[in-house]
Amino acid sequence: MDFPKLKNDNLLRAARGEKVDRLPIWIMRQAGRHLQEFKDFMKDKSFFELCETPEYACEVTLQPMRRYDMDASIIFSDILVIPQAMGMECKMVPGKGPTFTTPLKLDNMKDLTLRPEINSKLSYVYDAITLTRHKLEGKCPLIGFTGAPWTLMGYMVEGSGSKTYSASKKWLYQNEEETNKLLDALTENIIDHLVGQANAGAQLLQVFESNAGHLSSHLFEKYCTPRLKYIATSVKKRLGEKAVPMTIFAKDGHFTIESFADSDYDVIGVDWCTPPELAREKAGNKVLQGNLDPCALYASPEELTKIVKEMIKRFSTTKYIVNLGHGIYPDMTPESVQTFINAVHSVAIE
Amino acid sequence: MDFPKLKNDNLLRAARGEKVDRLPIWIMRQAGRHLQEFKDFMKDKSFFELCETPEYACEVTLQPMRRYDMDASIIFSDILVIPQAMGMECKMVPGKGPTFTTPLKLDNMKDLTLRPEINSKLSYVYDAITLTRHKLEGKCPLIGFTGAPWTLMGYMVEGSGSKTYSASKKWLYQNEEETNKLLDALTENIIDHLVGQANAGAQLLQVFESNAGHLSSHLFEKYCTPRLKYIATSVKKRLGEKAVPMTIFAKDGHFTIESFADSDYDVIGVDWCTPPELAREKAGNKVLQGNLDPCALYASPEELTKIVKEMIKRFSTTKYIVNLGHGIYPDMTPESVQTFINAVHSVAIE
Repeated sequence: MDFPKLKNDNLLRAARGEKVDRLPIWIMRQAGRHLQEFKDFMKDKSFFELCETPEYACEVTLQPMRRYDMDASIIFSDILVIPQAMGMECKMVPGKGPTFTTPLKLDNMKDLTLRPEINSKLSYVYDAITLTRHKLEGKCPLIGFTGAPWTLMGYMVEGSGSKTYSASKKWLYQNEEETNKLLDALTENIIDHLVGQANAGAQLLQVFESNAGHLSSHLFEKYCTPRLKYIATSVKKRLGEKAVPMTIFAKDGHFTIESFADSDYDVIGVDWCTPPELAREKAGNKVLQGNLDPCALYASPEELTKIVKEMIKRFSTTKYIVNLGHGIYPDMTPESVQTFINAVHSVAIE
Repeated sequence: MDFPKLKNDNLLRAARGEKVDRLPIWIMRQAGRHLQEFKDFMKDKSFFELCETPEYACEVTLQPMRRYDMDASIIFSDILVIPQAMGMECKMVPGKGPTFTTPLKLDNMKDLTLRPEINSKLSYVYDAITLTRHKLEGKCPLIGFTGAPWTLMGYMVEGSGSKTYSASKKWLYQNEEETNKLLDALTENIIDHLVGQANAGAQLLQVFESNAGHLSSHLFEKYCTPRLKYIATSVKKRLGEKAVPMTIFAKDGHFTIESFADSDYDVIGVDWCTPPELAREKAGNKVLQGNLDPCALYASPEELTKIVKEMIKRFSTTKYIVNLGHGIYPDMTPESVQTFINAVHSVAIE
């Protein structure tokens, strides 16, 4: 596809465990509501219109790149594009987040297209990625992503975000057969979607298991770990020589890190409740990514710089990608993000 | 106060690390909406009317005692009685939970009564406890409780429950002085309230740090751990010979367990995301309490029994109190609770 030559490959080098020129940093949800230019651009468009129009998705993906000297960009999209491709209608409800018109129930599961043609249904994501790879002009790598099977199932069954995810967890305890059927279909769709994104130009792939913290280690091992490992193995196998590094981020899943030490993921994301030392101890040889408390961006520039440097000291500059421990909140200032980036880039590599 | 003789002291023995006749079990929020008799009783009353009327609080505290062979009862009350005593008006909003009419802000902190007369302001709790101790007829011990300083501050600043607690965390990062002032006042009020409850007849005291999981270990160590330890030490000192066992439960605070191994708490509560082995490893000699996934009560009786027995095997029957890893959800059936209790009591003590 004749993409521009990559000028800053620190993210990819870190992900492969190689030496970097500077510590790579990117921020989950870096394209979004903390930027005034995003809010301006959004004014006459709906959230999913942004996702589904490659030119729009490209534009908002590039917005933080114009402001900040980031070491990665991540395509503007949503984890719920897969349930949408499976036939579920989803709308962004202000104050509530993305919401399915009809939540998934046992008796409407038959209306679901379990294995849609992901490649054609989600072609808008791949077009956005290809376009963005060109427009990025090799500034830094472009990340593609997906939600993990359990996390997607949670949204589908609850209809939106939930405090307890008890409706979807009820499936795990009461309807093992339907749960497996649904999770298996999601797993295959996810693999297709990740392969599609890499083929379109994504240079690293991240899997978001955002709802890991609602499960016990027993349920996570039963329903999630095997499928998450299978996703990494399958994607790399299908991509063959064109395989890219992969990251697993199980939010609030301190108890899951150990399982991913032995997997085909290259990078393990860490939330801010997991101390760096614990993550290192459990993660074996894997590269770690994280884990600044998003609220640390509220601190003064001096204090924030101190916190960031302390975090880096605890992770070390080897096999490490800097990020928040979760997505950035909409009320953070670009100035605090700039301070964060400066603090990271000022650290000497050992 | 000439309370009836205690017939089943397994909870207290377990809390002191002594041998028990059977594994003690109680369930957080055991008095409440999962019981039809509670919903019936609530029909013509508001939530805080229940808390503030000793006869009502006593009645709903006893409801689960009539149904189940539990090893502890816990006084029906709310963690927000302390902010209420400090002058904040709180209402139960259906679908949203307890909500403060005017959330705490820096510029209305002056309207707060930092150190109210807890003993008189919250006398309704002590009256409820004394009454319930009599009405329990020694069936099992009665637990008193409180919210922890940071958890109470979170509700006060956010105005209600929150997904991120970012408004209150902003205080921690930006307003250290006011934060310390508020947390210190809460700490002293909490101590008063715990002493008051023990003096009124509570036989064990539990401190709920329900929002531990929103803080990094750094913030928790800075703002919470010293105050939580001080609470246990002070309460025991003030009670002297009449001191009762104390439990700390820091929800989603796997990273906090180690700090409480060296504290005056007797029991450490464990959420369901923390594997029993990890809790044991970190908790030193302390007694553990927990940690069944509340959603496990959705499982079939056979499956639930299996899960419960497996959990007990992992914790062992020594220094262990059985509970959920969080409060019971309103849609659980009394039958599933009964299965849970039977499974626990069927286990032979080693």
